[in-house]
Amino acid sequence: VYRRKIINDPVYGFVTIPSDVILRIIDHPWFQRLRNIRQLGFTHYVYPGALHTRFHHALGAMHLMSLALEVLRAKGHEISPSESEAAIIAILLHDTGHGPFSHALENVFIPEAGHETLTKAIMSKLNQAFDGRLEMAMSIFENSYPKPFLHQLVSSQLDVDRLDYLNRDSFFAGVSEGVIGYDRIIKMLEVHEGNLVVEQKGIYSIEKFLVARRLMFWQVYLHRTVLVTEMMIRNIFRRAIELLGGGHPVLNGLGSKALTGLLTYRRGVEDGLDDFLEIDDHDVMMALKTWQNAEDRALSELSSGLLHRRLLRLEWIAAPMPDAELSQMQAEFASSRDLTAQDAAYFVFSGSTVNHAYRMDSGRIGILFRDGTYRDITEASDLPNIIALAEPVVKFYLCRPK
Amino acid sequence: VYRRKIINDPVYGFVTIPSDVILRIIDHPWFQRLRNIRQLGFTHYVYPGALHTRFHHALGAMHLMSLALEVLRAKGHEISPSESEAAIIAILLHDTGHGPFSHALENVFIPEAGHETLTKAIMSKLNQAFDGRLEMAMSIFENSYPKPFLHQLVSSQLDVDRLDYLNRDSFFAGVSEGVIGYDRIIKMLEVHEGNLVVEQKGIYSIEKFLVARRLMFWQVYLHRTVLVTEMMIRNIFRRAIELLGGGHPVLNGLGSKALTGLLTYRRGVEDGLDDFLEIDDHDVMMALKTWQNAEDRALSELSSGLLHRRLLRLEWIAAPMPDAELSQMQAEFASSRDLTAQDAAYFVFSGSTVNHAYRMDSGRIGILFRDGTYRDITEASDLPNIIALAEPVVKFYLCRPK
Amino acid sequence: VYRRKIINDPVYGFVTIPSDVILRIIDHPWFQRLRNIRQLGFTHYVYPGALHTRFHHALGAMHLMSLALEVLRAKGHEISPSESEAAIIAILLHDTGHGPFSHALENVFIPEAGHETLTKAIMSKLNQAFDGRLEMAMSIFENSYPKPFLHQLVSSQLDVDRLDYLNRDSFFAGVSEGVIGYDRIIKMLEVHEGNLVVEQKGIYSIEKFLVARRLMFWQVYLHRTVLVTEMMIRNIFRRAIELLGGGHPVLNGLGSKALTGLLTYRRGVEDGLDDFLEIDDHDVMMALKTWQNAEDRALSELSSGLLHRRLLRLEWIAAPMPDAELSQMQAEFASSRDLTAQDAAYFVFSGSTVNHAYRMDSGRIGILFRDGTYRDITEASDLPNIIALAEPVVKFYLCRPK
Amino acid sequence: VYRRKIINDPVYGFVTIPSDVILRIIDHPWFQRLRNIRQLGFTHYVYPGALHTRFHHALGAMHLMSLALEVLRAKGHEISPSESEAAIIAILLHDTGHGPFSHALENVFIPEAGHETLTKAIMSKLNQAFDGRLEMAMSIFENSYPKPFLHQLVSSQLDVDRLDYLNRDSFFAGVSEGVIGYDRIIKMLEVHEGNLVVEQKGIYSIEKFLVARRLMFWQVYLHRTVLVTEMMIRNIFRRAIELLGGGHPVLNGLGSKALTGLLTYRRGVEDGLDDFLEIDDHDVMMALKTWQNAEDRALSELSSGLLHRRLLRLEWIAAPMPDAELSQMQAEFASSRDLTAQDAAYFVFSGSTVNHAYRMDSGRIGILFRDGTYRDITEASDLPNIIALAEPVVKFYLCRPK
Repeated sequence: VYRRKIINDPVYGFVTIPSDVILRIIDHPWFQRLRNIRQLGFTHYVYPGALHTRFHHALGAMHLMSLALEVLRAKGHEISPSESEAAIIAILLHDTGHGPFSHALENVFIPEAGHETLTKAIMSKLNQAFDGRLEMAMSIFENSYPKPFLHQLVSSQLDVDRLDYLNRDSFFAGVSEGVIGYDRIIKMLEVHEGNLVVEQKGIYSIEKFLVARRLMFWQVYLHRTVLVTEMMIRNIFRRAIELLGGGHPVLNGLGSKALTGLLTYRRGVEDGLDDFLEIDDHDVMMALKTWQNAEDRALSELSSGLLHRRLLRLEWIAAPMPDAELSQMQAEFASSRDLTAQDAAYFVFSGSTVNHAYRMDSGRIGILFRDGTYRDITEASDLPNIIALAEPVVKFYLCRPK
Repeated sequence: VYRRKIINDPVYGFVTIPSDVILRIIDHPWFQRLRNIRQLGFTHYVYPGALHTRFHHALGAMHLMSLALEVLRAKGHEISPSESEAAIIAILLHDTGHGPFSHALENVFIPEAGHETLTKAIMSKLNQAFDGRLEMAMSIFENSYPKPFLHQLVSSQLDVDRLDYLNRDSFFAGVSEGVIGYDRIIKMLEVHEGNLVVEQKGIYSIEKFLVARRLMFWQVYLHRTVLVTEMMIRNIFRRAIELLGGGHPVLNGLGSKALTGLLTYRRGVEDGLDDFLEIDDHDVMMALKTWQNAEDRALSELSSGLLHRRLLRLEWIAAPMPDAELSQMQAEFASSRDLTAQDAAYFVFSGSTVNHAYRMDSGRIGILFRDGTYRDITEASDLPNIIALAEPVVKFYLCRPK
Repeated sequence: VYRRKIINDPVYGFVTIPSDVILRIIDHPWFQRLRNIRQLGFTHYVYPGALHTRFHHALGAMHLMSLALEVLRAKGHEISPSESEAAIIAILLHDTGHGPFSHALENVFIPEAGHETLTKAIMSKLNQAFDGRLEMAMSIFENSYPKPFLHQLVSSQLDVDRLDYLNRDSFFAGVSEGVIGYDRIIKMLEVHEGNLVVEQKGIYSIEKFLVARRLMFWQVYLHRTVLVTEMMIRNIFRRAIELLGGGHPVLNGLGSKALTGLLTYRRGVEDGLDDFLEIDDHDVMMALKTWQNAEDRALSELSSGLLHRRLLRLEWIAAPMPDAELSQMQAEFASSRDLTAQDAAYFVFSGSTVNHAYRMDSGRIGILFRDGTYRDITEASDLPNIIALAEPVVKFYLCRPK
Repeated sequence: VYRRKIINDPVYGFVTIPSDVILRIIDHPWFQRLRNIRQLGFTHYVYPGALHTRFHHALGAMHLMSLALEVLRAKGHEISPSESEAAIIAILLHDTGHGPFSHALENVFIPEAGHETLTKAIMSKLNQAFDGRLEMAMSIFENSYPKPFLHQLVSSQLDVDRLDYLNRDSFFAGVSEGVIGYDRIIKMLEVHEGNLVVEQKGIYSIEKFLVARRLMFWQVYLHRTVLVTEMMIRNIFRRAIELLGGGHPVLNGLGSKALTGLLTYRRGVEDGLDDFLEIDDHDVMMALKTWQNAEDRALSELSSGLLHRRLLRLEWIAAPMPDAELSQMQAEFASSRDLTAQDAAYFVFSGSTVNHAYRMDSGRIGILFRDGTYRDITEASDLPNIIALAEPVVKFYLCRPK
């Protein structure tokens, strides 16, 4: 008999692991590996508590999935034990395709595969290891299972992934304003014609959730210091790959064989997955520690700067930076530091970032009104401002040394 | 020497009483009286924890005022010790003019004086008792003091009154979604040309505050069960006064002399204030307990219903109820229960309620941008939805017995 | 079909009302009456947030009972749906026999009946109103039901009553140190030979619970200002009853017929219960408001003092006050204030209070060790200090005007 | 002018960096290095949230020091601005001598220097870098400064170090029972004849603090899974050093030059400090990742097991394991796995652990009674159980493969 295992979680109190199979998946090295991949990379440079990992996030999302399924079942929607287990497995594994430093280094280790492709590949590999017990979880993940609301719980604008990461990120960052009323939102979930919707009386909770999410974007995810660390680490790896391509022995002394292999041979999913599953934040951090002493100045200065928190400076600018002006800046920087113009572009660059509080294009949030009708949340008359939240906000930036 | 007194507050941990004069004001019977006036009347019929009093709210607002003054002082704005004390006294006393059941029974005890008029009268009376030490507090309260930001801390769309009541009401009601980031908002306060403003980097906190406030309105302050209790208690007192006007001995056996006097003689501020300062929620509750056995059916049925939580039913309707239709309903109810049409109107009635998330007309929230310019929050380009929040939302309702 | 009703509770988030019968019990006037009886009387004079009622506490205890039953069921102990409902009803009603100001005025309204006697009488009356559906709940409450652990969940040194009141009182008082790990304790509950016990790995939680409970006693329940208010209100009522016995018209103008009846005729449970069920804190508070103007000086001065928080002063003394010394003090006070010696004893008096952190005599806490043996918690070798907690701590006090 | 920097901390809300020098110390690489040293090593294998670092702990302790100094100053004790800054620097740096995995690997990198010796060496080095500005901080740290209470705030049984780590560890581990009333304890601090003491009314808070601390020891710090990880990592490094001593090329392919140097040459403080300051958790984790493929079976199996959470099993035993019995077990394990007896001792071993809730030998907690006398907390008559807490609890264990 399976005896339920309980895990302490500062965010929810206790999280229960609901079944033996799920416990065995959690214990598998490919899942345990998420213990060594931080959810928010270098965000702890701004918010020192933000050290939580994708492992913890996955457990939290699993917990919310259990709660959501229980609520829907209590409202009369049939969900079989195996559907329930599959939905829980799907959310548990939804982020396994993330590598170290997640989005910042996406496509760096396996050039042509984003994290969703990798997640599918890993689920598939794990499915073999578990003798096909993950089939239904995979079909829910890929939205080919006949009950679309199960997929929508895993992935939509109101999925338990978001509910957990907003909760968890704001909790560990200490940004109490990002906290959302996840428990009330979950109690308001409903299913309408197979799709996940929210009861009318939950609309103010949804509005608050969207606003909290936007706040988290500007205050945490797109905080300028956080953005800078992401651009610096990306530039560091671009530079390392560039040098390798030129036959430069940049990886000399790098302890990690798996990382060395990935950066050198630029493999695809099939050949690279085993190595990909070996690397985590520690490999990347040790690479930075090694590279701070590299001969190449772009590589060593960026690595050393990032390690010791001597960062480039990002400023928000009112409009896109004209190419000519940027080139001029790069040239000046290059000459002042005796670098090539090409090298200077690793230190001086410009770009934009965008934040959608609500997207009209996919995974929309439906409201089930008291009269039984169903409409998108932007059409709820009580919320004149929701439609405005669907307007993306774009900001432009310029990065350069202080 | 004054030794600082510290009070436990579940909302803020500890609240410090900053000076001896303030301690003596708090100990005065006219302030202690607020211990017996609940902040939210019968809201505990929906949210059982919402039993907190105006006494507690006033202490909380005092605490936030101390924090805000400290922040502004640390940013280089001169605030003398006596200005500080006066601002604290002003906020401490800002609600003393509230009688039992606050807004629901406003103008019932002293017909022509709202709570602000009464607050001023009480402050004035108290000023005499304290030998004129409240002069500056009064001038801040009335906005005649030269530093307008002090008044704005007491009364504006971002005053410490709101910050505390939103916090406190959501805390005790257990509506965690109403919680606001009061500490961050306070840290973002600034003064610009004598007026209270918010630093640019605080705009998302303000947006979240406005949205949380609107959520609290629909979910708590204008919750339909709460609205019903307010209308029932108002109707009960209107009926009692009506009967009294007709010489009916409705107050027979009512223990409270002060309440009897107020309801019978319909006095003004000058004559009525002493009695007004004697009554609190207990007098009103005992009146209901007495009236549940009154001969008059409107009085007894409404009192008994309100006491035992057998309430009228409020439903939201799409448009104002046409007069003819309402009269028809009242007539039907009257005949079914053998009441006069006039009596029936105490049980069957209609109306509307409105919620402004942000008002353009007064006490606006100004943002101080990084470039030193100052604009209203609705003009901040990052917040396409704020302007929509300035649109009032009106809802119509119909009340009648279940 | 019963649709589960959910109530916001700041302590637990949400509390669910599990069945239709339970909902109807909660809606009954004898239960709703608990809305107007504060859990902690005048404790809000020290901790302004401590305004919560026995109504709220009963709902909270109901919630913890549901959790505890679920845990025990998941560990394989059979508990039928009707046993579960009965246990929940038993805890819901366990405090219905409390009158206004609970312990402080126990035996004042119905001289020979403590609150447990009254609870049983009310349960019995309610059982009739519900056509006998409360039989099993009553037998659990009275410990005549064959599964003793159900009774122990309602009443023992580790019952859900204590778990909730410690939690709730510390929460509303803002005494965060009184908070206990109720969720972990509940997860550690077990049944051994029909009795409620705790798993070995829960012993540190139990130790902490006992220590937190003792802290709450000294810091809140036996806080000297709280004790003083209890003694004052008891003396006020003793005096009123004394005057009534002498034919003094002390109740003239008292609005409350039920209270008047109870104080005048000193009835037993049978005759007095209807009136007892009519009175609540409001009746008592209005009596104080009336009595502050009474002719009798002991009555008026104590009432006025208690109402305006001008309290007697309690000091802890090292040993019991010798009778002669106390008489001397009373005599001096009497002469200084022109009172009789008998009257003076209402203002100057002495006594003792005792606090048991753990009692060896009844409702003991059993630990189920890993090896399957069962022993009292004082015998757990890891906790050398627990046995010391079984030693009662006695303190002596002297009360007199400041 | 220094503009105060504010850091979000989920534990305290906001932490303020009080001066420019302190900000520069925090920014120094030797302090930033603590960002990469976890407070609790592999404790996250049991409590997934326990990922916080010594960096975060040091900031938290700094915050509590600021609060404590403010409280003492408000009570009339003179503390100059430079004393205040020095005390804050002392607590900020008190843990800089910790290396990766702290206690578990203490004395591994620099054999004859414990973390206190290293802290002093680093403070001294930093003092040079800051032109002697850390002199007073060093003398407070070493208890040679004339005001002993400043040292006691840094190091005693009631220092801000403990207050922060108990708070922080219980917070991130999600063990809510470990939470202590740090704010109330700090408000109760006093100075008596130059020493740090607690006001009498704080004794229950202290009792609760001691009990919470003991709970944290058994539930977290000495949790058997946590102990196992510490013993495994210690054995891994002992084995690596042993192999190195035998000339075995165990460090082949190890990326970290600093770690290689330290393990190979077994240097003292003078020669080793620079390398010590280069290594952090990442170096150690990468060493484990490399060693899981080592030829030596003890090294590779323990490394691989620790990395993939396939741990040895620790069981508590009633008495010390007799040597002969242990040897027998080791021999059996050796033969079953074809290892030498010496190798087997890395997998099968025994020992004891001890927990002092309160120590009588140093850094005792003094209580200042209302009558002005001063006694040790074990002599407070209200707390019959405190003296029992001074009794150490010893537990014995046996470790071996599952």
